[in-house]
Amino acid sequence: MKEPKMLATTAGDHEFPFAAWTRQTRQSALREILALASRPGLLSFALGMPAAELFPVSAYSGAASHVLTEEPDALQYGMPLGCLRRHVVELMARRGVLCTEDEVFITSGAQQAMSLLGQLLVSPGDPLVTEELTYDGMVNALRPLQPRVLTVPSDPRTGMDVDALEALLQSGERPALIYTIPEGHNPLGSSMPVAARRRLAAAARRHGVPVVEDDAYGLLNLEGEAPPAVQSFDPRWVLYVGSFSKIVAPALRTGWVVAPPEVVQRLSILKQGGDLDVCTFAQRTLSAFLDREAFSTHLAQLRAEYRDRRDAMLAALDAHFPAEARWHAPASGMFVWVTMPEEVDTTALLRRAVEEAGVAFVPGQAFCSAGGVRGRNALRLNFSRVNAAQISDGIRRLGEVLQATETTPLRVSQRTLVGSER
Amino acid sequence: MKEPKMLATTAGDHEFPFAAWTRQTRQSALREILALASRPGLLSFALGMPAAELFPVSAYSGAASHVLTEEPDALQYGMPLGCLRRHVVELMARRGVLCTEDEVFITSGAQQAMSLLGQLLVSPGDPLVTEELTYDGMVNALRPLQPRVLTVPSDPRTGMDVDALEALLQSGERPALIYTIPEGHNPLGSSMPVAARRRLAAAARRHGVPVVEDDAYGLLNLEGEAPPAVQSFDPRWVLYVGSFSKIVAPALRTGWVVAPPEVVQRLSILKQGGDLDVCTFAQRTLSAFLDREAFSTHLAQLRAEYRDRRDAMLAALDAHFPAEARWHAPASGMFVWVTMPEEVDTTALLRRAVEEAGVAFVPGQAFCSAGGVRGRNALRLNFSRVNAAQISDGIRRLGEVLQATETTPLRVSQRTLVGSER
Repeated sequence: MKEPKMLATTAGDHEFPFAAWTRQTRQSALREILALASRPGLLSFALGMPAAELFPVSAYSGAASHVLTEEPDALQYGMPLGCLRRHVVELMARRGVLCTEDEVFITSGAQQAMSLLGQLLVSPGDPLVTEELTYDGMVNALRPLQPRVLTVPSDPRTGMDVDALEALLQSGERPALIYTIPEGHNPLGSSMPVAARRRLAAAARRHGVPVVEDDAYGLLNLEGEAPPAVQSFDPRWVLYVGSFSKIVAPALRTGWVVAPPEVVQRLSILKQGGDLDVCTFAQRTLSAFLDREAFSTHLAQLRAEYRDRRDAMLAALDAHFPAEARWHAPASGMFVWVTMPEEVDTTALLRRAVEEAGVAFVPGQAFCSAGGVRGRNALRLNFSRVNAAQISDGIRRLGEVLQATETTPLRVSQRTLVGSER
Repeated sequence: MKEPKMLATTAGDHEFPFAAWTRQTRQSALREILALASRPGLLSFALGMPAAELFPVSAYSGAASHVLTEEPDALQYGMPLGCLRRHVVELMARRGVLCTEDEVFITSGAQQAMSLLGQLLVSPGDPLVTEELTYDGMVNALRPLQPRVLTVPSDPRTGMDVDALEALLQSGERPALIYTIPEGHNPLGSSMPVAARRRLAAAARRHGVPVVEDDAYGLLNLEGEAPPAVQSFDPRWVLYVGSFSKIVAPALRTGWVVAPPEVVQRLSILKQGGDLDVCTFAQRTLSAFLDREAFSTHLAQLRAEYRDRRDAMLAALDAHFPAEARWHAPASGMFVWVTMPEEVDTTALLRRAVEEAGVAFVPGQAFCSAGGVRGRNALRLNFSRVNAAQISDGIRRLGEVLQATETTPLRVSQRTLVGSER
C-alpha cells in the first residue's frame, strides 16, 4: 500500500475528533495573565507565587542527597509513602484536625487534589457550588465533565456567605459539591469566622452535600494561629485539601487530601488511572526534609517574612492609593484585595500599569467563576513574591497610575475583559 | 448551633454521594498482584520494573545539585521546560519520528499521557478499541467516562491484528480512539512488523480514528534499532506516548506525548485542570541529566544488561519449562510471554508458585482488557528487575512447580481468577 506524500491534505478528509467538551474550552485567564506578567523587568504583584529566595534550598538539597544515598529504591516505582502521610497528620493538628494516616491521601499538588475529588463527586452535567469570586482551579479541573456552576457571594473579610449557601441548598438544588477557600482566600484574602465554619459544616451534613475545603494557604497564617479548618467540625462531609507548594516549594508538586478512608481508597483508584499513584522522588525527598529541624524554623521564618511584606504593602497602599480605594489586612495567605469605585475597570488599568509603570497585578474579574462583571473594579495584589522595598516602590508607581485615572478613560471601558468569557 | 457528639451516626442520614462511575470500579488487577508479589523474600518476575541497581544515581544526583545551585527558580512555579522538550525531539529521531518542540508535551509519566489523551478524545460512553490482551492503563484512565471497550486480537510475535481492526472499523463502529503497544508489547513482548505499522496508520487516517501509540518500551530495544514508531507513518492521526520511566527512572514521573500542535495546546489546557501543568523539579533535573554524556552511556549499558537478562531467561525456560510451553524472544521491552496448554490455569499456578517456590509472575488473564478468559493459560515474566543468576534460579523453581502439575489440579480450576471481573 502506497503512502500519499502530502499527509496533511489527505488527513483533511476527516475533522480531528476531539471530545465534545473541548469546544467550550478557553485557556485559564490566569495563564494569559502569566504571559503578560512574565515580561522581563516587570515588578509583578500578579502571581500567587512564594518567594524563591526563601526556598529551603540547602536543607532540601541535603535531604535529596540523603535519600539518593540511603534509599536504594528512591528512584523506583513504589507505593505511596507512609512517612509523608505521618508528617501530614502532624501538620493537620495545627489546623485543628485530628486524623490518622489512612485518612491522608498524597496528590500532585492541591490542583490534583481538586481534580480527583471533583471526578469522584461530580457526574457529567451535575451542578456544583463555588463562590462568585474564587480561584478557578475546581472549575478548570472539571471541564471534561461540564458541570453547571452555581455561585454564592463572598464577603472580602469573612468569605463565603453561608446564609446564601443555605438558601440555595433549601431551594431544592442538589449540587455534587461545595468548593470554598475558608482561610487566606484567593483572591479575597478573607478568613471565615469560626461560627460560619461551624454552620457551613452543619449545612453540608444536613443536606448531604460534601464541602471541598481548599486550605492551600491555611498554614500561612500571619497572625498567631488561624481558626480551625472547617473539616474539624465535620470530618465526614468536609474533604480537606492542603499543599506543600506555599510552605515548602511548588515545583515538588505535593499536596494532600484529608478525607474518610472510603474516600481515600477511591481517590487512589482514580489516581492510578490518572498517573499511577506511585511515590515520587520528590515525595521521598520532601519527607526527608520534613524529618529535619530545618522545617519548623523555615515555616516560622516564612510567616515572619510574609507578615513584613504584607505590612509593607498595607503601608504603601495607605500612602499612595486614592482615598476611595478599600482593602483590609488578610490574616493568612498571600493576597490583598483592593476595591475601587464601581466605575473603575481594572482590566484597562492593568494594561496601563504594565505599560506606564512596569507593574502587574490581576484584575478582580479574572476570578469571576461564572462569568459576569463581579470584581471588575478590584485588584488582587500578591505580597509574597517580591521584597518589602520592591512592594513600596511598586505600589507607589501603581498608585500614580490610579491617581492619573481622573483624566483618562479608565472608567466604564468597553474593552474585552480578561476572563469575562470564561 | 450545637454540634452532635457522634458525627458518624448523624451523617448516616445521607449516603455519601459518589459519582455514578465509582460503583463499577475495582482496584487494578496489577495492584492486587503487586500486594501478593511484595511479600518479603519473594523472587519476582511479576512487576514491570526497571533494575534499581542500574539507575544512574550518581549522575542524577550531580544533575540535582547542579540545578539547585545554578537555577534560582528550580523549586518555583514555572512554565513547561523547553530544554526537556528538545531532548525528547532528539530521542524521537531514534524512533524514526521527526518532530519539533511544539509537537512535544511533557506529562507525569506515560500513564498521565494516556489519561489526558483519553479525556481529549473520549466523550462519556464512547467506544474505544484496545487489544484483547494489553496493559490496562488506558481503560483505567477513562473510568469516569465509562467508555465501551471493543477489542481486537493480537499475535504474540507481531502484535495487534490489523486485519481484524480494519474489519471492525468497516463494520460501522466509530471508536473514539485505538490504543496499541506496537513495540516491546506489554504483556506479549511482540513487535509489530513495519508493513503492519504502515497499514495501521493508513487505517487510522482513512477512518478518521486516532491511534494512541504507547511506546514506553520502544527505546529499550535489545537487538539493534527497533522498527520506526507507527507515528512516523502518520504524524497527524497517530499520537505517540513515550516515557523516561524505563530508560531513566520511574520515580521521576516524566513521560511525553508527540502530537500535532493543536492537540498539544488542548493537552496543556487539560493538564492545567489536572495538576497545573507546571515544570517540576524532577523535570529540571532530568533535563540537566540528559545534557550529560552519562545518558548515552547509561542507555547503552541498560540495553546490554537487559539483553543479557532476557537471554538468561530464554535459556532457563529452555532448560526447565515443560516441552509443551511456548514463547519467543522479545526484541524490545521487559517481558517474555509464555503460553501453556489450554487447560492450564496460571492464576492457580501463581498461588502455588508463591507458596511452594517463592516465585511470582503475572497470570496472563490479568491483561484481558474486556474480561473473559483470554490469557488464562499464559504467564507474563519480567526479566528486567532481577539479575541473570536470580533469573536462572527462579525459572528453575517455577519450572519445578509446572512439572509437578501433572499430579495436581492446576488445570481446569474453578477458582476466582485475578482480573477476571474487570
